[in-house]
Amino acid sequence: MDAGMDTRTDSPRRWLGAPLEQLPTPALILDQAKVRGNAERMRERCRALGLRLRPHVKTHKTLEGAALATGGTRRGIAVSTLAEGRFFAAGGFDDILYAFPAQEWHLPECAALARQLQAFQLLVDSPRGLELLRQNPLPGGKRWLVWLKLDCGNGRAGIRPTDPEALELARAIARGCPEVVTLAGVYAHCGNTYGCGDIPAVQDVARDTTKAVLAFVTRLRQEGIPCPEATIGSTPSCSHPVPEMSQLTEVHPGNYLFYDLQQTQLGSCRPEEVAIRVLTRVVGHYPHRRQLLVDCGWAALSLHGRDRGPPGCAAIEGHPQLRLVGLTQEHGQVEAVDGELDFQRFPVGSTLALIPYHACATAAMHPVYFVHAGGKVVELWHPTRGW
Amino acid sequence: MDAGMDTRTDSPRRWLGAPLEQLPTPALILDQAKVRGNAERMRERCRALGLRLRPHVKTHKTLEGAALATGGTRRGIAVSTLAEGRFFAAGGFDDILYAFPAQEWHLPECAALARQLQAFQLLVDSPRGLELLRQNPLPGGKRWLVWLKLDCGNGRAGIRPTDPEALELARAIARGCPEVVTLAGVYAHCGNTYGCGDIPAVQDVARDTTKAVLAFVTRLRQEGIPCPEATIGSTPSCSHPVPEMSQLTEVHPGNYLFYDLQQTQLGSCRPEEVAIRVLTRVVGHYPHRRQLLVDCGWAALSLHGRDRGPPGCAAIEGHPQLRLVGLTQEHGQVEAVDGELDFQRFPVGSTLALIPYHACATAAMHPVYFVHAGGKVVELWHPTRGW
Repeated sequence: MDAGMDTRTDSPRRWLGAPLEQLPTPALILDQAKVRGNAERMRERCRALGLRLRPHVKTHKTLEGAALATGGTRRGIAVSTLAEGRFFAAGGFDDILYAFPAQEWHLPECAALARQLQAFQLLVDSPRGLELLRQNPLPGGKRWLVWLKLDCGNGRAGIRPTDPEALELARAIARGCPEVVTLAGVYAHCGNTYGCGDIPAVQDVARDTTKAVLAFVTRLRQEGIPCPEATIGSTPSCSHPVPEMSQLTEVHPGNYLFYDLQQTQLGSCRPEEVAIRVLTRVVGHYPHRRQLLVDCGWAALSLHGRDRGPPGCAAIEGHPQLRLVGLTQEHGQVEAVDGELDFQRFPVGSTLALIPYHACATAAMHPVYFVHAGGKVVELWHPTRGW
Repeated sequence: MDAGMDTRTDSPRRWLGAPLEQLPTPALILDQAKVRGNAERMRERCRALGLRLRPHVKTHKTLEGAALATGGTRRGIAVSTLAEGRFFAAGGFDDILYAFPAQEWHLPECAALARQLQAFQLLVDSPRGLELLRQNPLPGGKRWLVWLKLDCGNGRAGIRPTDPEALELARAIARGCPEVVTLAGVYAHCGNTYGCGDIPAVQDVARDTTKAVLAFVTRLRQEGIPCPEATIGSTPSCSHPVPEMSQLTEVHPGNYLFYDLQQTQLGSCRPEEVAIRVLTRVVGHYPHRRQLLVDCGWAALSLHGRDRGPPGCAAIEGHPQLRLVGLTQEHGQVEAVDGELDFQRFPVGSTLALIPYHACATAAMHPVYFVHAGGKVVELWHPTRGW
């Protein structure tokens, strides 16, 4: 619900200009040049394909990150919660797509956002969802702008494009009451790219998803149903787009602004493109068990990646010979891969930079992100949270 | 660092008095009677053993929860971060033990808390930690109050009581400069109880830990080293204390205020004593894959428990025939255990209550907790976060 109480006796603003090494730990740090590079590369990739980029903001949930990802236009984003919708609308963003199937209990807030914004857009994946909007028309001549959510193999929300009900639903949206509910487009999330082992496998999923979406749009056009937009998302698919994707109108990846260890493993990025780290310090040597402790536990990292085997929830930058073997709430346990830990190289107080397995999950644990350039803190980003 | 920005257009206070079923989901809800019962039972258990209870507040991080756990005295708590230290000090709490080995970069904030409070206490587990305090005496005749952190088999922070260096360190604290640094007691966390399969195994760990702590204190006394206090912690050990624990002076469990699925499996509590739920709603039926979706993903639950096999990150209250089979950021996938999901029983919009595997991790995901009694929201608790 709300963002909690600010109980700081000192503000994080005091760290602006400070060298990274002076930050209190654990701290989420972002490399400004890398974030900007990731934003620019994705924008360039989309430009080359003639696609609009609608960055999903769920990874970072910050006005600063979304401003960067939209190239400063603050137009055209996807959000995962109504809290994000409110936050970005209040922050001057418009053309906001709420990428979660609309429900009855969302309606008052969705209506408020639709009135406030030029374009607030919703997902529908069932006749029930459509009926709900029809029975609750927006005032003032505004229309509900809906995207039909398709499930092209991801197996989460959405209606399968080969299911006869998908076409019926599209017909019902387009022909039912267009002055109340307008079909903006079709939307698919290929989250199943995360199960892939390499780039060709990711591209196969992206190609299949794109083809399924486009085949559905073709059928709509054959029936004379207007469906101006078609989008797919996921950072793996958009990091190595297939040529077929140029026939879509937009894409909506999100994680790419930071990338992470998982994306590196999937081939979405090179290791040097990962912009996010958790800065931590060595807090103790325990030579009898050949371990050192750091002040980063799951409260600063999340446990994402723990069930994926080595390298677990994070890699330790610049030290492939080290591994994080345990995380409790505020402690991390570090060992040498070969068992022989050289404690002198890691004195108490020395900093380590952890590359998280899943940036979305790690970012969710932090009330502020420290953006750095030239070794110093140059910006603070403040995420929203809650629902 | 800070607690983030509050971007709500509406405050959670509007839900005070509302029936639980009306809450926006996902929502962390706490059963007031159960939380009070858990607080009272632990206090009673400690009274019966003649032990002071120093509740650890890291699970909930709220003034309201800590007030309840201290029986309203607001005296005698353990915290896991300096952010908690500042928050509880500002909230009128005193006798605060910062249960993390003190480091050089903590010192300015620790000194501020020590000046502000009657009793701010620290852990030390190395000669380096002691030296640090010695070289930075508190002004105004105040002393650093330190607890020697012992590792009695948990294998995280702490010095092993059988290690000759433990006795040397205790000597150094007690005899070095008592007007600068005073030995308050010895502190052990038996987190290794979490690896136990049943109550007798938990009690074996608690007994071993207690005996090791007491044997160490006896040696100190034989040397004439004053060590007034001795404490062990962990909710499993304190939920079924062994008689030997009555020879300690205090205990410092934390999770017991809420309990969770993990504690139920460990035998720490009965299922009906678990006070925490995440309230969620059914948002869609997907009969072709025999699944329904709920609006609770890892962003509201955490992924703790995922690597522990069924029942995974949460149980679904009152519906043992259902299981949560997948969590993405904002979606949960639910199936019938036997594959035959009766969709009519779970219409879209119906609420489900998820019993989380790990309350500390789930609570960390929520900016507000809704406390309920008689089916209505009666209190809001606001946690702190960050470091």
